[in-house]
Amino acid sequence: LKFEVQILGVGSATPVLERHPSAQVLSIDNESFLIDCGEGTQYRLLEQKIKHPRIRHVFISHLHGDHYLGLIGLISSLNLNQRSEELTVYGPKGLREILEIQFKYADTRIRFDLNFVEVDTTARNIILDHQFLTVETIPLAHRIPCCGFLFRTKPAPRKLLRELLPEEFPVTYMKMLKNGIDVHDELNQATYLAADFTLEAATERAYAYCSDTAYLERNVPQLANVNTMYHEATFTNELLSRAIETNHSTATQAAQIAQMANVGKLLIGHFSSRYKTLETFETEARAIFENTLLAEEGVIYEI
Amino acid sequence: LKFEVQILGVGSATPVLERHPSAQVLSIDNESFLIDCGEGTQYRLLEQKIKHPRIRHVFISHLHGDHYLGLIGLISSLNLNQRSEELTVYGPKGLREILEIQFKYADTRIRFDLNFVEVDTTARNIILDHQFLTVETIPLAHRIPCCGFLFRTKPAPRKLLRELLPEEFPVTYMKMLKNGIDVHDELNQATYLAADFTLEAATERAYAYCSDTAYLERNVPQLANVNTMYHEATFTNELLSRAIETNHSTATQAAQIAQMANVGKLLIGHFSSRYKTLETFETEARAIFENTLLAEEGVIYEI
Repeated sequence: LKFEVQILGVGSATPVLERHPSAQVLSIDNESFLIDCGEGTQYRLLEQKIKHPRIRHVFISHLHGDHYLGLIGLISSLNLNQRSEELTVYGPKGLREILEIQFKYADTRIRFDLNFVEVDTTARNIILDHQFLTVETIPLAHRIPCCGFLFRTKPAPRKLLRELLPEEFPVTYMKMLKNGIDVHDELNQATYLAADFTLEAATERAYAYCSDTAYLERNVPQLANVNTMYHEATFTNELLSRAIETNHSTATQAAQIAQMANVGKLLIGHFSSRYKTLETFETEARAIFENTLLAEEGVIYEI
Repeated sequence: LKFEVQILGVGSATPVLERHPSAQVLSIDNESFLIDCGEGTQYRLLEQKIKHPRIRHVFISHLHGDHYLGLIGLISSLNLNQRSEELTVYGPKGLREILEIQFKYADTRIRFDLNFVEVDTTARNIILDHQFLTVETIPLAHRIPCCGFLFRTKPAPRKLLRELLPEEFPVTYMKMLKNGIDVHDELNQATYLAADFTLEAATERAYAYCSDTAYLERNVPQLANVNTMYHEATFTNELLSRAIETNHSTATQAAQIAQMANVGKLLIGHFSSRYKTLETFETEARAIFENTLLAEEGVIYEI
């Protein structure tokens, strides 16, 4: 299964032309999950030719404008474009009210199934149990209620080597083998070891999205061993005091969390508009956690 | 006095990459007036290097997303950028409520003077009496409450030719001459004709913004003789029935209004996303009203 994330925005609250506000598209198989939706995200989706019908779930981390202002425009456009697929929006208290008041004054009647799931940003909850993955909230520490999202693929069954088995082999036995259970066939006095008749399943993979947050060690156990972690790095270490003041993280802090959680790869983003170039972020983070990448807009990262 | 309008968006509701949603900046002297503010307008202002402090008045025609969704992001950014100048937002009922609920959930405290003026979209009212101009609402016919805006410069005094007058000439006499009144000086038995000692004042100029609206002849008297009229032309005449259905205008209809109102120049915009090229709009409008221009993003039009 393809499991990847495309970054649409690596900017933060103050707008600059070189960087867009937060938005990412996580894709598994042929389905896409939109994570945050800053102003203009619908134009980023057009630029990247991401097909809207594939997006059925949108996750909003918090109600600061650079993370959600594009959602009302996106939903309005989906409606204009005759969308028929269901769409579920997960976000903190207030999001639904904000959208509905805008629909009301625009006299917009949404003609597809639009659902809202209000998430508790203070707890670790599984908010979506999907065919391919589960999505769990990651409580973050910000000025207003805010959570990240942990996407974890489900354990897949082992792959059955059908051609090695007898022709009339019972389905119940096949299921046992796929689940790694050896089969003893009493009737024919035969034993089939799962190890002989199946291949190892694809390993589970996990992607963690953590934006916006102050440095938060208590999340390390939840983030342990994820393949890829996106963590905000609004400032470099020189502005640590500013990071603390504004409940954001520095590149160093993002790398410290990555190291403690033993993640596979760290992507950093949400860079403050004050930085014209980003080398310092990379240098600083890599000094602590080597496998760090600066998130780049338009780029797809395999997880 | 410089009096000009810069177009920031000529698109309509359905997003396309080639055209942005509605927004314009009218400038007189060193002050700017923002007219409509579709999603992403703050990025257009950055692109065009338009200085935010110069904008003290924002006019929103109606609460369809392509005309106002950029306002919340713009105001939030002005606040982040430590704006100190006052800002007044003119718009229909609902706008203030929509903005305030978003400030509430974002825990945003606006630190500059932000005022709201709720406009009655059904009447012709002067909503701003400014040093250089007046702004009047133009009632339009759309699916939801909607009005245009008529910007008219104030009559300027005649320019005094000071060097031709005696040195100790009284200030009250000067004022009379500037207002075109001849002076008879009883004491010195001298007569000073305004025509001899002053130059003609700059003529008044007017700009009308009409978006979005069905074809509406009843507005012709209000629009009569304006120097430049922007009028929406969402469709070409081939889709007249669609224009009627959606309370929009065709290029032909915009030109008919321009002709009847005897305007100086017609700018058309708000083109539907279904049109990849725009030649037909131009041909169609010019067949009726020769001095028609397709509004182009980034271009500044003198009024």
